[in-house]
Amino acid sequence: MQMTSEDSIEVSKFTWPKGFYADSTHAGLKPDQDDMGWIYSETPADAAGVYTTNQFQAAPTKLTKLTINVAHQLQAVVMNSGNANSCNGEQGETDALLMQKMAADRLKIDASEVGIASTGVIGEPLPMAKIKDGISQLKLTHNVGLTKAILTTDTHPKTITVKCMVDGKEITTTGFCKGSGMIHPNMATMLGFVTTDAAIAGADLQHLLSTTVDETFNQITVDGDTSTNDMVVVMANGAAENEPLEEGTADYSTFVSAFKKVLTHLAQEIAGDGEGASKLVEVNVAGAYSHLEGQQVAKAIVGSNLVKAMIFGEDGNWGRIMQAIGQTTAHVDLNGVSVSINGLQLVKNSLGTGIDDDEVTKTLKQKKVTIDVDLNAGKATGTAWGCDLTYKYVQINASYRS
Amino acid sequence: MQMTSEDSIEVSKFTWPKGFYADSTHAGLKPDQDDMGWIYSETPADAAGVYTTNQFQAAPTKLTKLTINVAHQLQAVVMNSGNANSCNGEQGETDALLMQKMAADRLKIDASEVGIASTGVIGEPLPMAKIKDGISQLKLTHNVGLTKAILTTDTHPKTITVKCMVDGKEITTTGFCKGSGMIHPNMATMLGFVTTDAAIAGADLQHLLSTTVDETFNQITVDGDTSTNDMVVVMANGAAENEPLEEGTADYSTFVSAFKKVLTHLAQEIAGDGEGASKLVEVNVAGAYSHLEGQQVAKAIVGSNLVKAMIFGEDGNWGRIMQAIGQTTAHVDLNGVSVSINGLQLVKNSLGTGIDDDEVTKTLKQKKVTIDVDLNAGKATGTAWGCDLTYKYVQINASYRS
Repeated sequence: MQMTSEDSIEVSKFTWPKGFYADSTHAGLKPDQDDMGWIYSETPADAAGVYTTNQFQAAPTKLTKLTINVAHQLQAVVMNSGNANSCNGEQGETDALLMQKMAADRLKIDASEVGIASTGVIGEPLPMAKIKDGISQLKLTHNVGLTKAILTTDTHPKTITVKCMVDGKEITTTGFCKGSGMIHPNMATMLGFVTTDAAIAGADLQHLLSTTVDETFNQITVDGDTSTNDMVVVMANGAAENEPLEEGTADYSTFVSAFKKVLTHLAQEIAGDGEGASKLVEVNVAGAYSHLEGQQVAKAIVGSNLVKAMIFGEDGNWGRIMQAIGQTTAHVDLNGVSVSINGLQLVKNSLGTGIDDDEVTKTLKQKKVTIDVDLNAGKATGTAWGCDLTYKYVQINASYRS
Repeated sequence: MQMTSEDSIEVSKFTWPKGFYADSTHAGLKPDQDDMGWIYSETPADAAGVYTTNQFQAAPTKLTKLTINVAHQLQAVVMNSGNANSCNGEQGETDALLMQKMAADRLKIDASEVGIASTGVIGEPLPMAKIKDGISQLKLTHNVGLTKAILTTDTHPKTITVKCMVDGKEITTTGFCKGSGMIHPNMATMLGFVTTDAAIAGADLQHLLSTTVDETFNQITVDGDTSTNDMVVVMANGAAENEPLEEGTADYSTFVSAFKKVLTHLAQEIAGDGEGASKLVEVNVAGAYSHLEGQQVAKAIVGSNLVKAMIFGEDGNWGRIMQAIGQTTAHVDLNGVSVSINGLQLVKNSLGTGIDDDEVTKTLKQKKVTIDVDLNAGKATGTAWGCDLTYKYVQINASYRS
């Protein structure tokens, strides 16, 4: 059998793609961990972004969006955790511009080539002396410390590197992200960064990012809240020297698969590391009238506090899944719904199957819980990811600032 | 100063209105508490109802809706807790009809005059032998045990009696309800019953109920989940012998005020007794572009898990309130928002006021927390009620069935 380029897609050890550098440092925004860092490409990279839909868009998010929109190009992104620079009014906007400028000066590039990202507490002024100090310490290395420096309540860095062959060249695509609370609909409720050495035009990259985010990051939910700050930014610097990827080609499909693998992995990582989460929950909906409705129902189930608490409690109380389906406006065969958990069928034709509770409780002890639902109302599907609702979620959010 | 009829409105000790009887009993659906009961009017009463919008409407809810819709008339409502008779397919519908018929037979009235209501676990068949036994034990008394018999995870009965003078007659309006989890939008996420001895036509009563529910029960949220079962039913038997109330008259306004007092009280009681709640939260929005948007924003704030956890943690992290406002689609002056908690102003012109954290923490220790928000985008207002998110909420919902 001949190897197709799809077969060339493989997850590999974390590495920065060709031509990318990164670094992190401790600027003093957090007590004693690295809290600043940057990514830098040796040549200007094509770039794309998606951003929070929250009306109170934070200054760094807004500035990065404007910057990318000019020419879909970036050479660096500088970032900090510990302070979101959000709801800080004009001072916040000035500080964001200054942070962008300081990074550009140190890298000897134009400020219009620098994206910025901040995450942390809302409504406290960015301590610019610390930011300045942090930027002065950053170097061009291949360290992975940056993937840790952007974390807030996350319990671990979330990273992936996927390689694939395109146009006879090896393409490396690397993603990392942070996000644990304020994770919900409509994207951008976290920070995500993808770097690739593929050559692809900025506009194509934007289209690819927007559509892939709809199927990945926009289908995760931790607590139903959307942040003011967050975004996903992609940089493609072409250092792999492939012919620029064009839609409709086999090479493009290969790259799309690799890219989707990166985003899907990161989205699942965020869902599974939701604040206080003890389990990753995946909901697969079949028999939906449309893909949109499939997505809507999957997300309604994974986002229901009652379902989430039930999974934490390892209790097969399937009525709560029905209730979550029923509160959507999706087409549903009210007498034809099936529900399974980890392959055990709990509901058939909208009625309980009488399955042994102990068996369900046993399967709910697994770290990953998969809920399969058939709405029997069409042929479309949908998938969403989330986590359980635990005591620890409440604990973390009752005392975030202290 | 002459006393207007509005001045006559007063909250009084709980009592059933003239011509109403009630009772409760232990039918064995719950281990050792009363779990069944009924209300009965000595004459057929005009009746109205509002019902869950969940697509999986439970059999008793559906049957009561159909029954009321025939002629807006009921003489009795029979109810049980411990089993929701929901998601039980045709068997559930047959059982609901049978329960209705058994109560009608015992009361020697027509089944078409009997509403039924069930609440409890979803997806388990209603034990009809116990239901039959329970109905056979019910009597016509003035006991208040019914207000307790319908409870599930509630910590206490929720009741109110309001008296007013209309057409020279004393009108008594009494409400009671249950509801603690699965409390959210679009009504009917609990059971509520209002009895009054006022004379008012069924269609008018329906209109009054629907509009008042929009301002009361539809503005409370505990966990964002809507139940399959719940409803609010009103019965007006005219035993006070007033001339039937007609819209546009002073007497009608007086009755509306009294009626709204009953529903507002019950709604607040449910919010404050939300599963695991330690505090009642009231959000008042001013400066909204429209009343609808004011209601939407108030509910978004009171429904945000992050805001709810912050209140439990007594932490004045106002960025979460901004985030909750920003994730709505309401008109907002992005640089002109004010936020106060219990009268302490935390945000002015969308910026932190630098208020002392300790002062905010101190005020958040109160059992009732009032959040006032001005969107500076218009002249309309909105109000919603909810509660904090606590460890106990998770505990209750992780082990509801066990």
